[in-house]
Amino acid sequence: MKTDILIVGGSAAGLAGAISSRRFYPDRRVTIVRREEKVLVPCGIPYIFGTLDSVEKNVIPDSVAVKNGIDIVVDDVTSIDREERKAATAAGETIEYEKMILATGSNPFVPPLPGVDLDNVYTARKDAGYLENLRLALREARNVVIIGGGFIGLEFADELSKLENLNSISVIEMLPHCLLVACDSEICVKVEEELEEKGVTILASRRAKALAGTKSVEAVELDDGEKLEADLVILGIGVTPQVDLAREAGLEADEKTGINVDDYMRTSDPNIFAAGDCTSKKCFLTGKTSMIRLASVATMEARVAAANLFSRRRRAPCPIGVFGTVIGNLAVGSAGFTEMSAKQEGIDVIVGEASSADKHPGSLPGAEMLTVKLIFMKDDRKLIGGQVYGSDKAGYVANCIGSLVQREMRADEIAIFQMGTHPKLTPSPIAHQIENAAEIALAKS
Amino acid sequence: MKTDILIVGGSAAGLAGAISSRRFYPDRRVTIVRREEKVLVPCGIPYIFGTLDSVEKNVIPDSVAVKNGIDIVVDDVTSIDREERKAATAAGETIEYEKMILATGSNPFVPPLPGVDLDNVYTARKDAGYLENLRLALREARNVVIIGGGFIGLEFADELSKLENLNSISVIEMLPHCLLVACDSEICVKVEEELEEKGVTILASRRAKALAGTKSVEAVELDDGEKLEADLVILGIGVTPQVDLAREAGLEADEKTGINVDDYMRTSDPNIFAAGDCTSKKCFLTGKTSMIRLASVATMEARVAAANLFSRRRRAPCPIGVFGTVIGNLAVGSAGFTEMSAKQEGIDVIVGEASSADKHPGSLPGAEMLTVKLIFMKDDRKLIGGQVYGSDKAGYVANCIGSLVQREMRADEIAIFQMGTHPKLTPSPIAHQIENAAEIALAKS
Repeated sequence: MKTDILIVGGSAAGLAGAISSRRFYPDRRVTIVRREEKVLVPCGIPYIFGTLDSVEKNVIPDSVAVKNGIDIVVDDVTSIDREERKAATAAGETIEYEKMILATGSNPFVPPLPGVDLDNVYTARKDAGYLENLRLALREARNVVIIGGGFIGLEFADELSKLENLNSISVIEMLPHCLLVACDSEICVKVEEELEEKGVTILASRRAKALAGTKSVEAVELDDGEKLEADLVILGIGVTPQVDLAREAGLEADEKTGINVDDYMRTSDPNIFAAGDCTSKKCFLTGKTSMIRLASVATMEARVAAANLFSRRRRAPCPIGVFGTVIGNLAVGSAGFTEMSAKQEGIDVIVGEASSADKHPGSLPGAEMLTVKLIFMKDDRKLIGGQVYGSDKAGYVANCIGSLVQREMRADEIAIFQMGTHPKLTPSPIAHQIENAAEIALAKS
Repeated sequence: MKTDILIVGGSAAGLAGAISSRRFYPDRRVTIVRREEKVLVPCGIPYIFGTLDSVEKNVIPDSVAVKNGIDIVVDDVTSIDREERKAATAAGETIEYEKMILATGSNPFVPPLPGVDLDNVYTARKDAGYLENLRLALREARNVVIIGGGFIGLEFADELSKLENLNSISVIEMLPHCLLVACDSEICVKVEEELEEKGVTILASRRAKALAGTKSVEAVELDDGEKLEADLVILGIGVTPQVDLAREAGLEADEKTGINVDDYMRTSDPNIFAAGDCTSKKCFLTGKTSMIRLASVATMEARVAAANLFSRRRRAPCPIGVFGTVIGNLAVGSAGFTEMSAKQEGIDVIVGEASSADKHPGSLPGAEMLTVKLIFMKDDRKLIGGQVYGSDKAGYVANCIGSLVQREMRADEIAIFQMGTHPKLTPSPIAHQIENAAEIALAKS
């Protein structure tokens, strides 16, 4: 078999890269080779178990690819002959290619805990059959322990709180608060309170030491000796990049940080690009290795890789990290640095915070509070991060904040930024949080 | 009476200017003199008549000013002695000031139609008593005609469609479509369909020639001879800046375009600034006089004026014009130029459009479609405008688009912009409309 552009992996980066490849090079044949019969919406996985109550409803339809003239092959690329530009597959196929994008993604991290191989210990693995088993197992479970209080862990906890058969749901987080990687502690506390109201037990500043049980898991032992009853455990501790194929092909790659790429998303082989969770990334501010793994960053990198396949056009920006989630009735968004992470990097900051109803007047039906916190470098007053919590506008408010971070805007520019307002769609222009938070930060400096 | 900073007018610009004055100059006394006992949320006026069913619920509470240490005087500044820096009021007070911000706003435009002075002919005047009379009159009305199919006119029509006593609601618009100043015609059509479904009659490409009646209005005569029965008429044709006070004080001002201000929002008197609907404005792209009048622009200008009172700190950007509204079940947003307005200016454009559900997977409960259209200069591929319609995320999507227009971003930069995504809060990262619309525009060019 022969193709022009071979894309290995069919999730966010693979699919976005294929679509952009077709847009830039409409005369070229684009082929995705992927392992999965069905591709799942990666961030949608927690919702399979409550809101959707179905794996099937969380599938990305292949019609997206078909509509764009992309070929899909369900198979597994097992090795690459870079000199001959040929890929071999598990099914025994040889695929000749001109250019390749590696979009091999990541695997959930499985910590080396005793008992981690017991039955009923799950991760958020992007595999429809595996997750269907988890869905069925959750129907039978009584006491669930979630190890890891990041976004995925908390979204699982929130969704599982909708299941009536469960007796207890506990979240174990080694940091002093859940979500602390993305939010400052005062916001983490609000999220934890939402979960506690729904009956979830949060065990922060605690570590799982071992999983106990004979065949299936029966308990989780904590570092302080406490033992939590558990007939189902979910690990939500992060991911590790899938770099095996790249390394075996002799490409530069690190098993912890990912496949080495330049600003054009090229690997050490100029005919092979890489994008998404499998690539190494740098922090936009410090230049240090970044462990941010987001579908939105993956698609951005894929659009850069695709554009550059046959001529160099685009440079990838370093990830800012724009997050959003909804836990209980509270939506939370974050972009860039938190106040705490900035201080940990030795950056002096000025912070401005502003709250207001998300509609105006606040007497309008459905109006909810929305609070924005912006973090500026003290030195030049550049925005390096921000957080938002309250109503479901938080996702797009985080995107507005992320835009301002990406464009390196200063507090004085943000204070007079033009944000459109409407009674039913946004806060009031007088109280609009982004400009006011900037103004308040300036008044402090 | 004596104050440091005298602000004339207590609506969006006046209040935002007062708050920023206090932030920048916390030791200075800030006094708002305003005519109105109660200040209304200007954009909230149409909602008084349906959703809120109350004038009182659409009042900006004075607690906002009090909390910020701002004095409020309900009175009317009738003249200014600029040499002596003294303002005289209708109540006979003399107020000494050091610096002044004129935030005198605008008046609804009343066209010189025969019969316009009849009873039951109303505008969206920002006056609580007047609007309470309109609210009561609407309770008794049967056939309402709205002259003007801009945002205000359509919001009135939408709200009035909730009143069961009304027999007919008609909107007369002289352009070929309603909302055409902010949206391209294919989007205007969708808005019109929403209203028609609610029983509103849209009469586009038509003009009102006269209002007929003896004491109270009884009919509206159109230019083609048709006569619409009407026992209540609402004029929503735009606004004219209130410049009388400024002109009588000898400041440069034009009764159609507003008080002349420089980039620092200073009038021709260096001690007097002006902000909001009363000032003249320029288009961000063409430099021509702009008739954009938005509360969000007013507050931006006020924050510039306030910062510059005692030292020059900020320059005001020209208004982009970021609009949003909800008509029926359809939310619409717009920023900058439409495809049509760009062509009218002789600007060659490339357009990209992308649609997707506003949550992902689209099977999530409550997911609705959201479509983004971006308009780029063909020449340098800079974003000069965009529109969005669909779910109520449209308000903040318009703000994201507005941010990108303000930062003069090009299509290739937007295509790889980092937008955070979350199943419950945003569209999918693969299908995210802003980046995809940019990518599609690039593929055309």
